[in-house]
Amino acid sequence: MLRRLSSLFLRTLRDDPADAELPGHTALVRAGYIRRAGSGLHSWLPLGYVVYRKVEQIIREEMDRMGAQEVHFPALLPREPYEATGRWEEYGDTLFRLQDRRGNDHLLGPTHEELFTLLVKDLYSSYKDLPLSIYQIQTKYRDEARPRAGLLRAREFVMKDSYSFDVDDAGLGASYEQLRAAYIATFDRLGLDYVIVDAMSGAMGGSRSEEFLCPTPVGEDTFVRSPGGYAANAEAVATPVPDPLPYDDVPTAHVEDTPDTPTIATLVDHANAHLPREDRPWTAADMLKNVLVMLTYPDGTRTPLAVAVPGDRDVDDKRLAAQVEPARVEPFTDADFDANPALVKGYIGPAALGEDSASGVRYLADPRIVEGTRWVTGANEPGRHVFDLVCGRDFTPDGTIEAAEVRDGDPAPDGSGPLEIARGIEIGHIFQLGRKYAEALDLKVLDENGKLVTVTMGSYGIGVSRAVAAIAETTVDELGLCWPRIVAPADVHLVIAGKDEQVVAAAEQLAADLDAVGLDVLLDDRKASPGVKFKDAELIGIPTIVVVGKRLADGMIEVRDRASGDRDEVAVDSAVDHLVEICRS
Amino acid sequence: MLRRLSSLFLRTLRDDPADAELPGHTALVRAGYIRRAGSGLHSWLPLGYVVYRKVEQIIREEMDRMGAQEVHFPALLPREPYEATGRWEEYGDTLFRLQDRRGNDHLLGPTHEELFTLLVKDLYSSYKDLPLSIYQIQTKYRDEARPRAGLLRAREFVMKDSYSFDVDDAGLGASYEQLRAAYIATFDRLGLDYVIVDAMSGAMGGSRSEEFLCPTPVGEDTFVRSPGGYAANAEAVATPVPDPLPYDDVPTAHVEDTPDTPTIATLVDHANAHLPREDRPWTAADMLKNVLVMLTYPDGTRTPLAVAVPGDRDVDDKRLAAQVEPARVEPFTDADFDANPALVKGYIGPAALGEDSASGVRYLADPRIVEGTRWVTGANEPGRHVFDLVCGRDFTPDGTIEAAEVRDGDPAPDGSGPLEIARGIEIGHIFQLGRKYAEALDLKVLDENGKLVTVTMGSYGIGVSRAVAAIAETTVDELGLCWPRIVAPADVHLVIAGKDEQVVAAAEQLAADLDAVGLDVLLDDRKASPGVKFKDAELIGIPTIVVVGKRLADGMIEVRDRASGDRDEVAVDSAVDHLVEICRS
Repeated sequence: MLRRLSSLFLRTLRDDPADAELPGHTALVRAGYIRRAGSGLHSWLPLGYVVYRKVEQIIREEMDRMGAQEVHFPALLPREPYEATGRWEEYGDTLFRLQDRRGNDHLLGPTHEELFTLLVKDLYSSYKDLPLSIYQIQTKYRDEARPRAGLLRAREFVMKDSYSFDVDDAGLGASYEQLRAAYIATFDRLGLDYVIVDAMSGAMGGSRSEEFLCPTPVGEDTFVRSPGGYAANAEAVATPVPDPLPYDDVPTAHVEDTPDTPTIATLVDHANAHLPREDRPWTAADMLKNVLVMLTYPDGTRTPLAVAVPGDRDVDDKRLAAQVEPARVEPFTDADFDANPALVKGYIGPAALGEDSASGVRYLADPRIVEGTRWVTGANEPGRHVFDLVCGRDFTPDGTIEAAEVRDGDPAPDGSGPLEIARGIEIGHIFQLGRKYAEALDLKVLDENGKLVTVTMGSYGIGVSRAVAAIAETTVDELGLCWPRIVAPADVHLVIAGKDEQVVAAAEQLAADLDAVGLDVLLDDRKASPGVKFKDAELIGIPTIVVVGKRLADGMIEVRDRASGDRDEVAVDSAVDHLVEICRS
Repeated sequence: MLRRLSSLFLRTLRDDPADAELPGHTALVRAGYIRRAGSGLHSWLPLGYVVYRKVEQIIREEMDRMGAQEVHFPALLPREPYEATGRWEEYGDTLFRLQDRRGNDHLLGPTHEELFTLLVKDLYSSYKDLPLSIYQIQTKYRDEARPRAGLLRAREFVMKDSYSFDVDDAGLGASYEQLRAAYIATFDRLGLDYVIVDAMSGAMGGSRSEEFLCPTPVGEDTFVRSPGGYAANAEAVATPVPDPLPYDDVPTAHVEDTPDTPTIATLVDHANAHLPREDRPWTAADMLKNVLVMLTYPDGTRTPLAVAVPGDRDVDDKRLAAQVEPARVEPFTDADFDANPALVKGYIGPAALGEDSASGVRYLADPRIVEGTRWVTGANEPGRHVFDLVCGRDFTPDGTIEAAEVRDGDPAPDGSGPLEIARGIEIGHIFQLGRKYAEALDLKVLDENGKLVTVTMGSYGIGVSRAVAAIAETTVDELGLCWPRIVAPADVHLVIAGKDEQVVAAAEQLAADLDAVGLDVLLDDRKASPGVKFKDAELIGIPTIVVVGKRLADGMIEVRDRASGDRDEVAVDSAVDHLVEICRS
């Protein structure tokens, strides 16, 4: 295929677009691959759509190779199946809802668990039909609170979503491993770096769950990894639980005046100044921080929650959110304080917390707050704190919660060493749904003994448009895009560097020859200076740039490698062979 | 590719599904190609999606071949561009509208004129950039009043929509011809029979417009064609205007008592019984029928309209609707009669009609009602009609309108003979939009003289999912589907007809051999009787059915042609060569 820049529907931009936040996204817009069509909505221009379709095709081929079968559902869906599983409400504001001309409720599918489940129920009825893996590559809709980063968090995007159906847990385990292997093959082919991390399954329910994250500082997911091979999404990291401590020699708890110490920092300063420890100074880690939030459930009910964390750690909003889904975490407002006078803002302590306390507020503690740990914490009176308050002796939380921030150097839960914190783009997610959807929608088959059993399911997603973005973000450099060959919009970017008739003729001939042997060529035949053309070639990021220019007089052309910047002179006579070798090796 | 029926996600149905109205649609559901997912919403099962993707790919290839460039827009779109062109309102109830979490209005794109126009405006600014043809293959949404016939009139469907951009009318004409040629190539490759008919451009505005109709009695579009080559959509047929008639010897109009004659039939009977003509009996064609309707415009205003047609013809709702778009035609209710006492239901005549009349109702007449034509029509009094009322002498309508039904045998407007009326499925529509969208959205480029000129556009659509349906409807027979080879879900349907080990082994070997030479094979390896398998093979409709069974003992297999039913015995040793020849010829 030969495309000409003189007629290609593309304009490169000299300046960074206003809506681009990340380097890859900026380059995709500047190089004429995509354009913004609205908040969280994007249009693909011709070169961008070539890349998109190559990525899509690789994903399809790997799904087919593992034996999954492609189907295709509508994006516009009736409410009823989502009502049956509770997701019509649970999805909250993220679900696009609409009514048709008859006033019937519809939604734009955010994922299709319900439809897949119902289709299998429609067609299959026996254990002999299983296992089954089916998938679609389809447009999805989510009304994100904060669409951002171009294709990375869009409101309309393309996802490959697949689902496995098995008669028992062992089958689900095997299907999961097959899909996992297919994902590894897919991302390997796409040339994407990735880490497989343990994940929370979140609103989807289910048990085993892993994410494929593409490590990059611009990623919006935080994950951890240890030298010994542990890797998890920050939301899924389990805190190792310390052993209980002896507390026989801890003095009785005592309340002290601590005026004007509504924060941990002011409290530490005050304690060191007026109530010093003998063995060492007080630190934030000695303080017990009690954080109040309000949980709002899909049905509208609101319930307060108190979270206790060591004073040297903050509550991590995303970790907390993952723990309480489908409830939404909202701030505990002054009005909420007014409604519960047992809670004294800035000086809240365990005595006022817990389901059996005066406030009645459920009280969950970080797993590090084990029996025998000794704390300074609020005394539930303005300007007063209680010292030597011992967990298990003086207070007992209602339970534990994984909501404290994870830090560089924290121990991995499996003992594989200190954790390193990194960021990544989620490019794939696989999880064992179990029987949640099959139960809600009554998907049963007859087993070997003629007994009806509920089918168990797995759910597996790859963000197709997001994979394009992930490739762009992790390969972009200061000059522009830099595509892996397998998804590049062409094999060769051929620059005509000069107006000389012989130069033009030689370049046209070379382009035709390359096209004839099956290479995809982008020919820069515009009336523009070589400097402008070189800059655009670097921005567009096709892996091999060929320059036909001055050196043609000596029978030579230049072949540049976009990624390394290496340049070779090649005899024009052997150029086709040379380029075929580069492009097909 | 080798697919096995034992694991293919497909179930054939013995009975016709409740929602299937047409033979092709029925077969698509029964053969396991598609399933209903909601009103006007369909899911593709694996075999169906293979066919769909083959059709899509042929359309894409022909668009690329003619030099059109593929882009891709979102389906979820902000309101503003559609507001600018007036279509936010004009589309009426057919547009799916929704709000996002911030309360901003959005729509699901029914077609993308606005977005294409804005994208070209964003990228291009000079006549040198034109002509340009760009297209997308994308999911569209229309909230049809009556979704029906499966994929033929769905609320979510896939369309290839393309647009041409030119600096002047001559350019638009050339682009239009190019697209027209590409459509001919596309439908030829798809093996679809088609007629190119003149069409109304309808709500889209613009000038030249043609439809590609696939002739079939189950089509919902009516068209006409003449022996001399004239062809037009029924909405677009122009009635030849007769010459004026002399009326010097027509008696003065006279009102007669015609009790209980509110219909044409009762009036003709009454006239023949009580007021006979001397030369011949009265017929319906002597009567002037005045039909009242109410037009409702997108902005909500309502205006009555009176349409006069010869009494032997009805008003054709679709022809009338096409003439008054974007207004909607609604019945003239009793309340409307009450509001306009000059109109006497059942006895309305020209004297009470017209913008200058007592009623003030706009009055448009069929083009046959020329000067000198002589009519019996309502006298605007209950039970009375006026006779010998002459057009041009006694009444003058406000104008003409093409709203009367077209009939078999009517003369073609170009004199090419009598019209035949037929039905078809609209599979393509091409039209010259002109400058409507470019003006509304201010798409201008600099011309050769440095002057800003408004771009002129063409718009060209192919229903991709509908093309699948059109192929099914026009090839289905009493046994089931019957795909043209180019879009069939496989080349060969290989039936293992017997449980004998040698039969199974030979069939498996043949399937593997065919797969190895690159043919797509659907292998029926199920535990089912040969009879069930043969029936399913006929229903599924792959063009070549191979049976490995009893005759293998003699080294023979059977090769059946699905369409003709012809059967050949072929030596198993030469089967691969034989089938390659059949499948690739």
